Amino acid sequence: METDQQGYIVIKAKDNGVQVIGLTRGQDTKFHHTEKLDKGEVLIVQFTDHTSAMKIRGKATIMTKYGSVDSDV
Amino acid sequence: METDQQGYIVIKAKDNGVQVIGLTRGQDTKFHHTEKLDKGEVLIVQFTDHTSAMKIRGKATIMTKYGSVDSDV
Amino acid sequence: METDQQGYIVIKAKDNGVQVIGLTRGQDTKFHHTEKLDKGEVLIVQFTDHTSAMKIRGKATIMTKYGSVDSDV
Amino acid sequence: METDQQGYIVIKAKDNGVQVIGLTRGQDTKFHHTEKLDKGEVLIVQFTDHTSAMKIRGKATIMTKYGSVDSDV
Amino acid sequence: METDQQGYIVIKAKDNGVQVIGLTRGQDTKFHHTEKLDKGEVLIVQFTDHTSAMKIRGKATIMTKYGSVDSDV
Amino acid sequence: METDQQGYIVIKAKDNGVQVIGLTRGQDTKFHHTEKLDKGEVLIVQFTDHTSAMKIRGKATIMTKYGSVDSDV
Amino acid sequence: METDQQGYIVIKAKDNGVQVIGLTRGQDTKFHHTEKLDKGEVLIVQFTDHTSAMKIRGKATIMTKYGSVDSDV
Amino acid sequence: METDQQGYIVIKAKDNGVQVIGLTRGQDTKFHHTEKLDKGEVLIVQFTDHTSAMKIRGKATIMTKYGSVDSDV
Amino acid sequence: METDQQGYIVIKAKDNGVQVIGLTRGQDTKFHHTEKLDKGEVLIVQFTDHTSAMKIRGKATIMTKYGSVDSDV
Amino acid sequence: METDQQGYIVIKAKDNGVQVIGLTRGQDTKFHHTEKLDKGEVLIVQFTDHTSAMKIRGKATIMTKYGSVDSDV
Amino acid sequence: METDQQGYIVIKAKDNGVQVIGLTRGQDTKFHHTEKLDKGEVLIVQFTDHTSAMKIRGKATIMTKYGSVDSDV
Amino acid sequence: METDQQGYIVIKAKDNGVQVIGLTRGQDTKFHHTEKLDKGEVLIVQFTDHTSAMKIRGKATIMTKYGSVDSDV
Repeated sequence: METDQQGYIVIKAKDNGVQVIGLTRGQDTKFHHTEKLDKGEVLIVQFTDHTSAMKIRGKATIMTKYGSVDSDV
Repeated sequence: METDQQGYIVIKAKDNGVQVIGLTRGQDTKFHHTEKLDKGEVLIVQFTDHTSAMKIRGKATIMTKYGSVDSDV
Repeated sequence: METDQQGYIVIKAKDNGVQVIGLTRGQDTKFHHTEKLDKGEVLIVQFTDHTSAMKIRGKATIMTKYGSVDSDV
Repeated sequence: METDQQGYIVIKAKDNGVQVIGLTRGQDTKFHHTEKLDKGEVLIVQFTDHTSAMKIRGKATIMTKYGSVDSDV
Repeated sequence: METDQQGYIVIKAKDNGVQVIGLTRGQDTKFHHTEKLDKGEVLIVQFTDHTSAMKIRGKATIMTKYGSVDSDV
Repeated sequence: METDQQGYIVIKAKDNGVQVIGLTRGQDTKFHHTEKLDKGEVLIVQFTDHTSAMKIRGKATIMTKYGSVDSDV
Repeated sequence: METDQQGYIVIKAKDNGVQVIGLTRGQDTKFHHTEKLDKGEVLIVQFTDHTSAMKIRGKATIMTKYGSVDSDV
Repeated sequence: METDQQGYIVIKAKDNGVQVIGLTRGQDTKFHHTEKLDKGEVLIVQFTDHTSAMKIRGKATIMTKYGSVDSDV
Repeated sequence: METDQQGYIVIKAKDNGVQVIGLTRGQDTKFHHTEKLDKGEVLIVQFTDHTSAMKIRGKATIMTKYGSVDSDV
Repeated sequence: METDQQGYIVIKAKDNGVQVIGLTRGQDTKFHHTEKLDKGEVLIVQFTDHTSAMKIRGKATIMTKYGSVDSDV
Repeated sequence: METDQQGYIVIKAKDNGVQVIGLTRGQDTKFHHTEKLDKGEVLIVQFTDHTSAMKIRGKATIMTKYGSVDSDV
Repeated sequence: METDQQGYIVIKAKDNGVQVIGLTRGQDTKFHHTEKLDKGEVLIVQFTDHTSAMKIRGKATIMTKYGSVDSDV
């Protein structure tokens, strides 16, 4: 596997209890991991062979290649 | 499989009950997964070996490489 | 198969009953799937190994690499 | 086969009865498919292993990498 | 064979009887196909494993990567 | 393995006790390493075959391809 | 063989009897084909495995990647 | 192994006793080398198959692809 | 062999008797072909597996990637 | 091994006795070569399969992809 | 061997007796060919598997990717 | 071996007796060739599988990808 260092998303929690939920790649699409963030924490995260979608719940700023978007506003 | 970290679409729900429906790649084209979003939730999602189309129902902002488009307006 | 995350077309229905019809790649060119969209729904769709052409019927805005074009106007 | 998602041509019919005719790739060059479009319909179409040329008859706007060109004017 | 979707030439006939003549690739260079265009018809055509040259006779506008050129003027 | 020299993230601690936590790539997502930084220290870090996400706790400036973001503010 | 759709030269005859002469690639360099053009005809031509040089005789405009050049002036 | 000549980081010590600490790539993340720099010395350093993170302690200027950052300020 | 359609040099003779001399690639460097051009003729020529140098004698304009240069001035 | 002609660093000594010290790539990081430069001498140097870091001691100007930096100032 | 059509150097002699001397690639570096140019002659030359350096003696203009440089001035 | 035509350094001697010294690539770093240049001579030189560093002694102008630098000033 060649790791793509360039591809990632940055999520900064603006409140406690922000959830970043990974959804499985493949035939079934289901939750496989939930990472919880407290206010001020930053998560930098890649898509993987097991994750093809992410859902963000709670107040956060999400930095993507299309610009920034705020969840829960 | 080499995972393309760069390719994804960002969907932000502007209302409860937004549906992001994955359609199967391959000879048959049918629904294989529906992800529901509540107001303020953000979904970041990739095409996969099993998904070659996505349908968005309900009020949402969709960020794509062609810019943003609002569903259900 | 390496999935091209970057390549897709965005179709937003401006009326009920918009049809996005997939035509088969290969020696025979025939309809293999019709996706129906209601007003306000958005479809994001890729070409696949089975689809080399798409026909759009009804009032819709289609976002492509050449810009946007409206069907049925 | 690696499908090139980026390559396609967009054809919008400005009149009924527009014909998009696929010509075969390979040693013989002959018609293998004719797609008919009614006024307002949009066809998005790729070259394939079986199609290396397309002929457009009737009033249509054709969007290509060199810009737009109108047939039958 | 990987089909190059990006490479093609666009020819619009400005008169009846325009001829687009394919010349064979390989050790012998000879005519292998002549496509006739009537006024207003548009032909979009690729080089192939069998065609390495094209000759255009009659009044037409030819769109190439170097810009447009008119034949028979 | 081809090492990607270009891909990395830069983290500068603005306070003692900043934590950079590596989360595992693969089927399970769990903490596998925590690097602690004191005020003024700089960490330059890559994603690896074992790390697909990083969580930053405490006051730090994080330089990413989307620009800089401050944690714990 | 992967055909390079992008690479070609455009020659427009400004007089009758323009000659486009293909010279062989390989250990011997000799004429292998002469294509004659009448006034107003356009030839679009690629280098091939058999042709590594082309000579143009007579009044013509030649469009190349370095710009246009007129022969026989 | 193909050595990437383009990828490196430049570190200039602004004081004696600057430490550049290499952390191991792979399942375990631990210190494997500490390079000490005296004031005015410059270190130019690549990530390797054994190093996926570097920690800089002490007063130094670090030149990265995101610009320069000073440690220990 | 993959033929590079993009790479060539354009030589236009400004006098009779211009010589374009191909020198052999490989351990020995010697003349292997001399192409003579009369005034107004244009030669478009590629480097090949057998030619790694070309010498131009006589009055000509040579179009290269560094711009145009005139021989024998 | 494919040699990367593009990647190198330029070091110009501004005093006698400048040292350019190569550090080994691989599991152990140690000195493997010291090149000494006298005032006015220029060294152009690549990373190799054996060298993943270089240390410069003494007054020199170092030209890198991030710009120039002076050692020992 | 894939021939790089893009890479070459252009040398124009400004005096008789200009020498372009090829030096061997490989373990030994020695002269293997000297091409002599008379005033006004142009030589277009590539590096090869046998040539990794060229020395120019006498008055000439040399066009390289860094711009033009005159020898013997 | 694929020869990189694009990568080279240009050295112009501004005095007699300029030395361009090749240092060996690999486990040992030692002198393997010294090319002497007289005033006005130009040397165009590539890195090779045997040369990973070059030292220039004496008055010369060296053209690199970072711009020009003069030795022995």
